[in-house]
Amino acid sequence: MKQAKGMKHWIIPDGYIPPTSAGTLLSHESICVLNCSSEEALLKLTIFFEDREPIEDILVVIPGRRTKHVRTSSLAKNGESIPVGVPYAIELISDIPVVVQYSRLDATQAENALMSVMAHPLA
Amino acid sequence: MKQAKGMKHWIIPDGYIPPTSAGTLLSHESICVLNCSSEEALLKLTIFFEDREPIEDILVVIPGRRTKHVRTSSLAKNGESIPVGVPYAIELISDIPVVVQYSRLDATQAENALMSVMAHPLA
Amino acid sequence: MKQAKGMKHWIIPDGYIPPTSAGTLLSHESICVLNCSSEEALLKLTIFFEDREPIEDILVVIPGRRTKHVRTSSLAKNGESIPVGVPYAIELISDIPVVVQYSRLDATQAENALMSVMAHPLA
Amino acid sequence: MKQAKGMKHWIIPDGYIPPTSAGTLLSHESICVLNCSSEEALLKLTIFFEDREPIEDILVVIPGRRTKHVRTSSLAKNGESIPVGVPYAIELISDIPVVVQYSRLDATQAENALMSVMAHPLA
Repeated sequence: MKQAKGMKHWIIPDGYIPPTSAGTLLSHESICVLNCSSEEALLKLTIFFEDREPIEDILVVIPGRRTKHVRTSSLAKNGESIPVGVPYAIELISDIPVVVQYSRLDATQAENALMSVMAHPLA
Repeated sequence: MKQAKGMKHWIIPDGYIPPTSAGTLLSHESICVLNCSSEEALLKLTIFFEDREPIEDILVVIPGRRTKHVRTSSLAKNGESIPVGVPYAIELISDIPVVVQYSRLDATQAENALMSVMAHPLA
Repeated sequence: MKQAKGMKHWIIPDGYIPPTSAGTLLSHESICVLNCSSEEALLKLTIFFEDREPIEDILVVIPGRRTKHVRTSSLAKNGESIPVGVPYAIELISDIPVVVQYSRLDATQAENALMSVMAHPLA
Repeated sequence: MKQAKGMKHWIIPDGYIPPTSAGTLLSHESICVLNCSSEEALLKLTIFFEDREPIEDILVVIPGRRTKHVRTSSLAKNGESIPVGVPYAIELISDIPVVVQYSRLDATQAENALMSVMAHPLA
């Protein structure tokens, strides 16, 4: 049995799904999670907006001894997903310690742009 | 009532508003703040320069359970705002814990460039 | 004798070797390690995937008072290396404290894109 | 008198001065330092390489209540400066607490690329 490593509560304030793509790559964001443990990690994500109520408790499972690079466009709760082209923020709570990084590829123009941050660990 | 999460004092040393934009996107910076609490957060920003006195105590309100992606070009105090094309730095003090990320889109050239960091938490 | 500085255990959740390059630069990732100590640092890297078992205990040596910017494409264990174009994650354990940063140059398009993060320190 | 804020010892493992520039912007790196104190901060920088001895104790002064975005190409010690096109790393020790961010603009291609990280704080 391998031990869980990292933190259980992470924040990413700058979320944004670019609305368009040019060139050969697709604009997207990924929430990249590493689960070092032999056990599955169950994540609960809350999505915060500038002008409406949060979408709470979107569930994501990360298998044991695996990473998962979660496309934010794939997240949904009761048929509600994150709209493109609006600023939002992410709160991630895991039942066991994991490590979380956030990256965005913006391909609005033909030539792409990249950014990446470690999520801010709370606990 | 939801609890406040994060830290109350954050620093961003590398501020810079690109003076020009080409292509379809506008060069800009955003200070992205997440307020997980049910209460409003009141931020006080101080802007430091290389060769002049700081602009102190610019106020920004973040509503409860909301994120706000604040354009730095929108910040002003007594009619004074941040000039474009000069290096500066940001100190942010909030009355309740929040989480702060800083991102810049540089569209000086037709194809854009992106960078992002979590602000450095002090307290 | 100079003292070791930093941490011994670091995580990078978002690894990805871009499969193609255009223009004059080559797409690549670097794990940038600084060893401030007068002694050699021995690193053990584990590579985690989305859908297969990890590659464990890839060894890298960082000489004393030196930095090394390790290309991830150069890492191998028993003839197995990291495939291009698949999401993966990195765990790095050093026998003495070091500091670790991860950077990616994506030259899929003629004009390149850059991202960089400090690795997440665990211990 | 305003108080010093931050840390006194910072590490940046991934330094690299791009050797060429195309388009209208110049490739460069900046070490961005914020000194919140009313007193001057005296920085000592050590530059580490992959294959030669470090350049030690390059001095930089940051005036009180000011930021300074230091171009790495401007750093020199006894006539020795950082060569372009080689991987290196930075250790920064300040006599009073400051906050340090590192950013790179790569304009090797006509369209530029950006990356930025907070330096890793040691003490």
